[in-house]
Amino acid sequence: MNKLWFQKIIRKALEEDLGMGDLTTNSIFTKDTSSAGTFTAKNDGVLSGLDCISLVYEELDDSVSVELLKKDGDSVSKGDIIATVKGPVRALLSGERVILNLIQHMSGIATSTNEVVSLLDDDSITITDTRKTLPGLRALQKYAVTCGGGKNHRFRLDDGVMIKDNHIKAAGSISKAVEMVRAKVGHLVKIEVETENKDQVLEAVDSGVDVIMLDNRNPSEVKEFVSVIPDGIIVEVSGGITPENIAYYKGCGAHVISLGWLTHSVNALDISFNLN
Amino acid sequence: MNKLWFQKIIRKALEEDLGMGDLTTNSIFTKDTSSAGTFTAKNDGVLSGLDCISLVYEELDDSVSVELLKKDGDSVSKGDIIATVKGPVRALLSGERVILNLIQHMSGIATSTNEVVSLLDDDSITITDTRKTLPGLRALQKYAVTCGGGKNHRFRLDDGVMIKDNHIKAAGSISKAVEMVRAKVGHLVKIEVETENKDQVLEAVDSGVDVIMLDNRNPSEVKEFVSVIPDGIIVEVSGGITPENIAYYKGCGAHVISLGWLTHSVNALDISFNLN
Amino acid sequence: MNKLWFQKIIRKALEEDLGMGDLTTNSIFTKDTSSAGTFTAKNDGVLSGLDCISLVYEELDDSVSVELLKKDGDSVSKGDIIATVKGPVRALLSGERVILNLIQHMSGIATSTNEVVSLLDDDSITITDTRKTLPGLRALQKYAVTCGGGKNHRFRLDDGVMIKDNHIKAAGSISKAVEMVRAKVGHLVKIEVETENKDQVLEAVDSGVDVIMLDNRNPSEVKEFVSVIPDGIIVEVSGGITPENIAYYKGCGAHVISLGWLTHSVNALDISFNLN
Amino acid sequence: MNKLWFQKIIRKALEEDLGMGDLTTNSIFTKDTSSAGTFTAKNDGVLSGLDCISLVYEELDDSVSVELLKKDGDSVSKGDIIATVKGPVRALLSGERVILNLIQHMSGIATSTNEVVSLLDDDSITITDTRKTLPGLRALQKYAVTCGGGKNHRFRLDDGVMIKDNHIKAAGSISKAVEMVRAKVGHLVKIEVETENKDQVLEAVDSGVDVIMLDNRNPSEVKEFVSVIPDGIIVEVSGGITPENIAYYKGCGAHVISLGWLTHSVNALDISFNLN
Amino acid sequence: MNKLWFQKIIRKALEEDLGMGDLTTNSIFTKDTSSAGTFTAKNDGVLSGLDCISLVYEELDDSVSVELLKKDGDSVSKGDIIATVKGPVRALLSGERVILNLIQHMSGIATSTNEVVSLLDDDSITITDTRKTLPGLRALQKYAVTCGGGKNHRFRLDDGVMIKDNHIKAAGSISKAVEMVRAKVGHLVKIEVETENKDQVLEAVDSGVDVIMLDNRNPSEVKEFVSVIPDGIIVEVSGGITPENIAYYKGCGAHVISLGWLTHSVNALDISFNLN
Amino acid sequence: MNKLWFQKIIRKALEEDLGMGDLTTNSIFTKDTSSAGTFTAKNDGVLSGLDCISLVYEELDDSVSVELLKKDGDSVSKGDIIATVKGPVRALLSGERVILNLIQHMSGIATSTNEVVSLLDDDSITITDTRKTLPGLRALQKYAVTCGGGKNHRFRLDDGVMIKDNHIKAAGSISKAVEMVRAKVGHLVKIEVETENKDQVLEAVDSGVDVIMLDNRNPSEVKEFVSVIPDGIIVEVSGGITPENIAYYKGCGAHVISLGWLTHSVNALDISFNLN
Repeated sequence: MNKLWFQKIIRKALEEDLGMGDLTTNSIFTKDTSSAGTFTAKNDGVLSGLDCISLVYEELDDSVSVELLKKDGDSVSKGDIIATVKGPVRALLSGERVILNLIQHMSGIATSTNEVVSLLDDDSITITDTRKTLPGLRALQKYAVTCGGGKNHRFRLDDGVMIKDNHIKAAGSISKAVEMVRAKVGHLVKIEVETENKDQVLEAVDSGVDVIMLDNRNPSEVKEFVSVIPDGIIVEVSGGITPENIAYYKGCGAHVISLGWLTHSVNALDISFNLN
Repeated sequence: MNKLWFQKIIRKALEEDLGMGDLTTNSIFTKDTSSAGTFTAKNDGVLSGLDCISLVYEELDDSVSVELLKKDGDSVSKGDIIATVKGPVRALLSGERVILNLIQHMSGIATSTNEVVSLLDDDSITITDTRKTLPGLRALQKYAVTCGGGKNHRFRLDDGVMIKDNHIKAAGSISKAVEMVRAKVGHLVKIEVETENKDQVLEAVDSGVDVIMLDNRNPSEVKEFVSVIPDGIIVEVSGGITPENIAYYKGCGAHVISLGWLTHSVNALDISFNLN
Repeated sequence: MNKLWFQKIIRKALEEDLGMGDLTTNSIFTKDTSSAGTFTAKNDGVLSGLDCISLVYEELDDSVSVELLKKDGDSVSKGDIIATVKGPVRALLSGERVILNLIQHMSGIATSTNEVVSLLDDDSITITDTRKTLPGLRALQKYAVTCGGGKNHRFRLDDGVMIKDNHIKAAGSISKAVEMVRAKVGHLVKIEVETENKDQVLEAVDSGVDVIMLDNRNPSEVKEFVSVIPDGIIVEVSGGITPENIAYYKGCGAHVISLGWLTHSVNALDISFNLN
Repeated sequence: MNKLWFQKIIRKALEEDLGMGDLTTNSIFTKDTSSAGTFTAKNDGVLSGLDCISLVYEELDDSVSVELLKKDGDSVSKGDIIATVKGPVRALLSGERVILNLIQHMSGIATSTNEVVSLLDDDSITITDTRKTLPGLRALQKYAVTCGGGKNHRFRLDDGVMIKDNHIKAAGSISKAVEMVRAKVGHLVKIEVETENKDQVLEAVDSGVDVIMLDNRNPSEVKEFVSVIPDGIIVEVSGGITPENIAYYKGCGAHVISLGWLTHSVNALDISFNLN
Repeated sequence: MNKLWFQKIIRKALEEDLGMGDLTTNSIFTKDTSSAGTFTAKNDGVLSGLDCISLVYEELDDSVSVELLKKDGDSVSKGDIIATVKGPVRALLSGERVILNLIQHMSGIATSTNEVVSLLDDDSITITDTRKTLPGLRALQKYAVTCGGGKNHRFRLDDGVMIKDNHIKAAGSISKAVEMVRAKVGHLVKIEVETENKDQVLEAVDSGVDVIMLDNRNPSEVKEFVSVIPDGIIVEVSGGITPENIAYYKGCGAHVISLGWLTHSVNALDISFNLN
Repeated sequence: MNKLWFQKIIRKALEEDLGMGDLTTNSIFTKDTSSAGTFTAKNDGVLSGLDCISLVYEELDDSVSVELLKKDGDSVSKGDIIATVKGPVRALLSGERVILNLIQHMSGIATSTNEVVSLLDDDSITITDTRKTLPGLRALQKYAVTCGGGKNHRFRLDDGVMIKDNHIKAAGSISKAVEMVRAKVGHLVKIEVETENKDQVLEAVDSGVDVIMLDNRNPSEVKEFVSVIPDGIIVEVSGGITPENIAYYKGCGAHVISLGWLTHSVNALDISFNLN
């Protein structure tokens, strides 16, 4: 991930959390008091976003030193130490909440992604995120998905074409919509069409699209539809897939399963910070 | 909530999602094509953040008109129409994802807050959030908590004092910590102390703090501790409280229950947008 | 104070003052010329904002070294050396004005605050600022007040409630206004009411507010009003208090005197910079 | 003045003052309550910055209407109504402090400038400001000086050359410094030299500078030095000039008197806002 | 193009050009003086960026009205009127330079693109830009290319893979590099390889890449290389192609010619503004 | 030049180019891979902007080391090495394009300026730029002009007065316009008038302006007009001057020739980057 994104988010988060200063910590600790602290996993999971520990402390006080004992993508068990830090207590405590808010959220995403990859247990199918991300946090959330073993769908509306229901209606047909898009976009842009039934799938195949999305299809429908899609076209399945039912998609023949809830409904991984 | 916060978040979110432009929509719709669309609840819940519909469209194209059929804090049932919009299709579709990402997240928070208030069913106890919020989104998340019937804890490290474990250790005792803080902060700042046992509670009482937090206490412990706290000191309970066990806290005598997961582990409320 | 505020203000100030570059200094000194310089008090006073010396030079050229001989809150006499700096002359001279503008202003506030604390000569009364600050400079100004021995009133409209004339009229009565506010704000927010006569004071007492402000009262009126306010309610006096009359408030029984002019009408403390 | 500057300062000021929202006002007034209010002078003075009334309200709620009864540069007497406003009370009250902080400061500058122009009472001498301004507020402060009848000195280090003590020492002589500057700067940049004695004045004359500053000279010294400066070179006097002694400079022959305290030590003009 | 980009660039440009205000115009015209003006082509070319006329005036004074007589992509001849504007003269003149700087630059790009499309005269070959754009202006420059009849190559390093020399060396071979990339990137990302000889072309074909770039090949080499590339793989030619030699590439069999100079070496189209 | 400008442009440019990250480089190189690379001139020219090499790498990874073998203003021949860099390959490659886009553009400007100075071959005439710069890049472009041996015209509308056609018409006459301006602007602002015929030149002389611009005059007209302009008034020639005809202006008697195309129509100097 591009570190510049991380830095901008961290600066905003520190402004948001510190306001004019940490009243409690600044009243009790002098500028010169130093200490050491530990970030510890309080639950099992997969880590993401650990760079933010040093990036937060660089903003607050560059004399804080950080030692990472784990790295992004590592699995942790409850009780595992993730990082130790040393330096002025004011910085250690004033940065704590912003760091935890970030790494708990990102590790929560990595953990869910990892779980769903395991539950599916099918190397031929890639798990991806969607654009259903939280405002301002997309780069971090999408990076966290990769830490958990998933890959990224489109980053933005400008780096891939996704022809949906409304576009098809407006254009008149899938093939007309594809034609209109092809007339405009560059040669490095892939075209994906969202389909709702077999007729649309066949029309999409005829239009020569790069990716066909099967929307809200159960595993047997996916198998049936996949059977009419030639090699070379990527098949993505999306909609209604949960940890409870994803195992049924194993071997369904699709190449990609995209999951909005990976990023829109995140359970934070519990991580704590304690001064030694 | 301060609208200026909303606008800043929306501008960032639109930059993040649109990048250099919506390739699909701009290829298929001309500048002049107009249409109408509907935001619909796809699940039962409580709404929050509806102002963002018009704020997003103001950024993209101020000729879009928005009619809200619900307002923040309203309960909706699956299928209820939330808002209708009219205007240039390019704007309608290019703004869709940012709007949904915001109102689904905020309404998810309002819905959980509302559920937990109902489960607790005790008017003498206020449900509040914490500082465990997502970077850059605190103002929105805290506002959403109020839409669900909760109130807000501290906004930042500068608008309230919370003396925790680490501060007490450094100061030597609760009373010493309180004294140090009182010497520094202004007369409009309340002082809260986090306590872990009855001795600490008694020491906090003696120190004349404004709020005592009972950390990770079960309902009977809360009752016991509350019995030694005089009127005029607010009692807050935090830690380990979930929708599953919150009903047991009814009548426990505390004034506030604060819940980190209201904002750090949000389930988005499902809302859809369709062109008519 | 939160260093991040200081950095943002300094970056803006340098952009504002340097524009596309310092024509004079860049024409006369080469990149490589180094020198040393001294910041000296040209008047007696109390210092504030000295961190900005190194923060400004970090932006311009991080090879400048700064040695502080005084620290924030220290008293200085005319002629005292405050800091010595060494490094590339271009940076030394191009940063001079921004540094002086900041530390002269902040030290001016610290000096006035200190004077007024001495004139009042009553440890039981805290001197505080108000929200009458200069746009963009509130964090710095409020920090400067603490350097002079004062404390801070509210930072913003979101970290304390102040019920004024207009609110009381709209609500119908003080008690009604307090009730409306209590129904909305969190448990860490104090409620203050501005009163103009004894009836209002009594009504405020009955409403159980945290702070009562006596607006524009002379010392004997303050004493009279204080006599009807029970312990536990903080009494603030504001309006019409100047260095000329503040001594009369000694022993008046109020806990806080807030002074708008501390920050809205500042006399800069004269400080000079000279190359050795 | 460039309105874009004003808007940026106002947005920052509103963020700074409102934080996550105006707790008091939002608790007591509904979104729909409208009212009217009046800005009134509480002291005699000269106005500056009135545009900020509508600019603040545009940010908060563009349904507020503003009627200005005075304009920038107008004199007011205590009790004069400056502007009336109508619209949602939430906006009226939440914007009040930012507006007053700005117009009281700017009108304070305009008023002092105007006083000093009157005290000097010499049309052949222009009163100007300096670069001794408050960080982030220079554009506003310099504009306020013009409202009071003064003119502006340099805006920045890039729009004029001012050769001072340190530059002269480094270059070796005034003429050498002027030569070095001339070799670098464009033809639209004027060159001013700060002088401390008659020899320097004579050297500056020989160097063909555009402006000669006489630093810390009393009126008779100014007259003496002016007598050796040919027509076509502008003479500026600076340093040690106060409202108490400025009248003595009448007829001294200088063209410009620049005053740092106009902007570094401002007395706010008292202005109030009341709901009708 | 995304209007938000345009607005941000325009705000920066106005700050950059106006500084603290337009001294000349503000001295000569009162706030109330209105007038009308005309933007006229002073040379033949293709237009791009006309939206910036109204976007600039919206920032300066929203009472300016703009009538466009041409639209982006239109050809103009010397003397053709492009737009007429009416409103306060201060805004008309203060915005003139920023508008002209933008539309002359963008129209210059559109014009060159259009020329090169005509010179090539081969509908089977798309002309595209590159990432050789001017800092901060990429969105505008790439949009201008589409106005001239070209299409866009990658927008950024995150929306397409381009495996170059250095990557191939590091990975060991083209096929190894492609494999490494495939293991990481999502299914909507195309992979392009830059090749320098026929062996590399054949290896790229075997690796199943989406696009093969032939770097610095003359037309006959292109034809030769194309003959070994199967249908379905896009062929891009880049390097050393100028208006002088592009006609020789007609019918060469490539699908795309990308040209860095379209955006890195732009000749502004001459456009003037005059008050009527 | 003010380094702060450079940093801001570089941060924006990196955001613009990297987006959420460099897919290709991050897939192929690990975080730990280091290498070395070389920036080489691919054409003869004059360099400008070399500081941006280290400034870009400081943003991406401060462990990159940069050794400059040339400095701004140096002439280079095709094949000359400009700088060598060492450090993590990810940073080296991800920063390459932004660096090249900047230094190729700036060196292109320096090179053209240098050529035109040589072609004119007249030390008594200064070559300057204009305000016809690219949005957001003015500081860099104007600095590049000075690297090529030119000087800078006005930076902005606030640091010099230029009375043009429209102003003269509105004021009624040149002398009236000058008078209006003089009544407003400070003593450090020069006044220039654009003239179109000898009558206007004579009127400008009478008005005592600082600079007279002769617009679109050929060399013999310039000579004729110069003959009526007294010493002490600077004569600037602008309009229609190209590398083809500039030599004819040698000895024409003007002091300044300003050239818009130096910055609005730039040919990038070809510079390459290669890993060793």
